[in-house]
Amino acid sequence: MGPGPSDVSPRVLEALGRPTIGHLDPSFIDLMDDCKRLLQYAFQTKNALTIPISAPGSAGMEACFVNLLAPGDKAIVCQNGVFGGRMKENVERIGATAVMVEDDWGQPVDVAKVEETLKAHPDAKVLAFVHAETSTGVRSDAAALCQLAQQHDCLSIVDTVTSLGGIELIVDAWGADAVYSGTQKCLSCVPGISPVTFSAKAVDAINARTHKVQSWFLDMQLVMGYWGSGDKKRAYHHTAPVNAMYALHESLLILEEEGLDALHARHRLNHNALVAGLAAMGLEMLVDEDYRLPQLNSVVIPNGTDDAAVRATLLNDYQLEIGAGLGTLAGKVWRIGLMGHASNRKNVLLCLDALENTLKAQGVNINEGAVAAAMTVYSDAR
Amino acid sequence: MGPGPSDVSPRVLEALGRPTIGHLDPSFIDLMDDCKRLLQYAFQTKNALTIPISAPGSAGMEACFVNLLAPGDKAIVCQNGVFGGRMKENVERIGATAVMVEDDWGQPVDVAKVEETLKAHPDAKVLAFVHAETSTGVRSDAAALCQLAQQHDCLSIVDTVTSLGGIELIVDAWGADAVYSGTQKCLSCVPGISPVTFSAKAVDAINARTHKVQSWFLDMQLVMGYWGSGDKKRAYHHTAPVNAMYALHESLLILEEEGLDALHARHRLNHNALVAGLAAMGLEMLVDEDYRLPQLNSVVIPNGTDDAAVRATLLNDYQLEIGAGLGTLAGKVWRIGLMGHASNRKNVLLCLDALENTLKAQGVNINEGAVAAAMTVYSDAR
Repeated sequence: MGPGPSDVSPRVLEALGRPTIGHLDPSFIDLMDDCKRLLQYAFQTKNALTIPISAPGSAGMEACFVNLLAPGDKAIVCQNGVFGGRMKENVERIGATAVMVEDDWGQPVDVAKVEETLKAHPDAKVLAFVHAETSTGVRSDAAALCQLAQQHDCLSIVDTVTSLGGIELIVDAWGADAVYSGTQKCLSCVPGISPVTFSAKAVDAINARTHKVQSWFLDMQLVMGYWGSGDKKRAYHHTAPVNAMYALHESLLILEEEGLDALHARHRLNHNALVAGLAAMGLEMLVDEDYRLPQLNSVVIPNGTDDAAVRATLLNDYQLEIGAGLGTLAGKVWRIGLMGHASNRKNVLLCLDALENTLKAQGVNINEGAVAAAMTVYSDAR
Repeated sequence: MGPGPSDVSPRVLEALGRPTIGHLDPSFIDLMDDCKRLLQYAFQTKNALTIPISAPGSAGMEACFVNLLAPGDKAIVCQNGVFGGRMKENVERIGATAVMVEDDWGQPVDVAKVEETLKAHPDAKVLAFVHAETSTGVRSDAAALCQLAQQHDCLSIVDTVTSLGGIELIVDAWGADAVYSGTQKCLSCVPGISPVTFSAKAVDAINARTHKVQSWFLDMQLVMGYWGSGDKKRAYHHTAPVNAMYALHESLLILEEEGLDALHARHRLNHNALVAGLAAMGLEMLVDEDYRLPQLNSVVIPNGTDDAAVRATLLNDYQLEIGAGLGTLAGKVWRIGLMGHASNRKNVLLCLDALENTLKAQGVNINEGAVAAAMTVYSDAR
C-alpha cells in the first residue's frame, strides 16, 4: 500500500510466468495488437500510436519529451511535486528551455498561472504537467490544461503514471497530445513498462522533425515501425519484453472486464472509507478534498511521531508497506496507496487497524475507532 | 532456437511470477546487492558499477554511449553486422563523430585495420565493437581490441549481448571499460533487462563530465545513486522492474551453480553436434570455424529453398522457431540459437531431425543422417 509498485493481482503474476515465445512469433504479434486495443480503451483514445514502451515510466516521460522537442525549443513545465522537476531535467537535457510554473507541493497546478505563462511565451512548443502527482497525492485539472495548450497552439505532454486506471482520464475528449503512464500503479501490473499514447497532431510533429531524436531506443519513428502503426510492415527495433507484455495484457483484460466506471467508483469508495478512518483517529490529509487522489492518500504525520519506526513496524509486524514522503515532504507525510487490485476493503481495514495499533503503541496521541468509521462508509454505500 | 529470446528455464519463470514487493523493501535491496555480485562473476570483473539496466539491451548500448561521449567527441566504431550500425546511430545522435571500421558480414572485426584507424585518429575517445554479432554468428577478438584501445588511450565499449554466459568473457583481464549485455540470450532469462559493467576508468570519465548526459533515464550518475555504488545512500531514481529482477537473479544463480567453465564446454559440445549434423546434410556454415559462435549458428540456406516456408513449417509442425537472416543476410542464412538453458542435446536432435524432414519434404536436395552424425559427437565426448 505504498505509492507503487502496487500489489499485483494473482492473474497477472500467472500470466507473467508463462513460457517465453519469440518476439516475432505470430501469436506474440497478435498479443501486441490486442495490447494496443486495450490500452486505447484504458486511455479513452482512438490514437493509432498507443503502445507500451519497453521500460519504466521515467523512460515513457523521456520518450514524450525527446520526440516532441528539439534543441532550441521552449517548453512550459508545471511543477507541484517531484515529477515536474524531472520534466525540467528532460527538457534541459535536450538543449531546450523550460519555463517553469511552480506551485506548492500538495497544491494542484494553478490553471490561471499557466494561462498567463502561455500568453507570455507564445513561442512555447509544449505544455507539460502531471495529472496525478505521486509525490503528493494531488490531482490537477488535466482537461482545462490540455484545452489551454490547444488554444495556444502547444502540444500537451501529460504524466498519467498514477492516474491511469484510478481516476477519470479521457485522452481524446481532453485533447491531450503525448501521454505516458506506468504499469505498476492502478493497472496492478509489474513495474517496468510505460504505456504511451500520441495524438495525430503529435505524430505529425514527430514525422516533421528535421533533427533526429537524440535517443535511438526511444525514437518513436523506429518504435512505431516495430509496433506496426499504420500499414507499414513491422521492422525489428529491439526485443520486446515478452513476459512483461503477457502481464500487461492480462492487467488490461481485467480492467476491461470491470469497466472504467466501476473501477473509478471502487477507488472512490475505498478512499472514502480510508479517509473516514484516518479522520476518526484525528489524522489530517495533506491535500484539499477537491484535489485528492483516491488512489494515493497523503496523510500528515502527527507531531512527535517517529516516521521510520512506524513504517518499520507496519512492514515487519503487519507485512504492510506504506510510502514515505518524498523531497520537501520527507518526514512530513505518509503516502498510502489504494491502487487497482489493491484498492479493496480488506486493505483499508488492515491499514487502519495496523496504523491505530502502531501509533498507540508508540505513544502517539490519537483517537480510537478507525475501523468502525470506515465500516460506516461501506455500510452507507450499500 | 532463434537468435533470442532463448527458451527460458522453468526455474526462472517460477521466480518471475513471485509476488511483487516494494522496490525499496529491505528484502529487495538485498536481492539487488546479490544481483550485482552474481553479475560480477558472470562478467568476470570486480567493477563496483556492475548492475542491470531496467530496459532491453539496446538501452544498455545507449547507456554506454551517452555516458562516455559528449557532443564533439570522436568514436571509432567497428561494424561487421547489424549492431555496429546501431552503435553508429548512437554516436551520431549524441552529436559525436563515428569513424567506421567496416568488415564484411560474417567476418570478424579486422584487428589490424582497427589499429591503423586508432593511429590515424589519436583524438578518438572511444573504441566500440561487438564481441558476438547476433546478426551473423561471428566472434571478434575482444581481448586484442580492448588491449588496442588501452594502448591508444581510448575507452572500449563492448557489446556482449550474445556472448555473456555463452563464450569466454573476462572483463577485467581484457581491460574492457563499458560492457553491456542482455538477459534474453545465454542467461536464458526473460527479455527486457540489460546487465552492464563499467571499469573504474570509465566511472572516472563519467564523474569528470562537464556536459550532462543527454538521457535522464540512462544517466549512470543517477543510476549509480539508486543502485548504491560506493558508500552513498540509495537515492530514488526510477521504480525497478521488481519481478524481472527476481528472474535475473535466478538465472544468475543457475549460471553460478553450473560454473562458467562447464557452461562454456556445454555450449561448445552442443554446437559441435549441431554442426556435424548440418554437415552430414551437406549444409554449409556462414562463418569460418575459427570465429564461429557456439551459441548462434548461421547456416547458409541451400539454393532453391523457400526460406519462409521452411521456417513456417518448423514453427507450426515442430513448435520450433529458428531465426531468419537480418539485413544483408536476409533470405541467405538461418540463425540457429543454442543459448544457455536451450543449449542441450534434445534441442540439437529436434532441430536436425525437423530440418532434415522439412527440407526433404520441400524437395531440397540434401543428404540424410544428420541425427546420427550429431550422436557420434556426443558419444565421442564421453
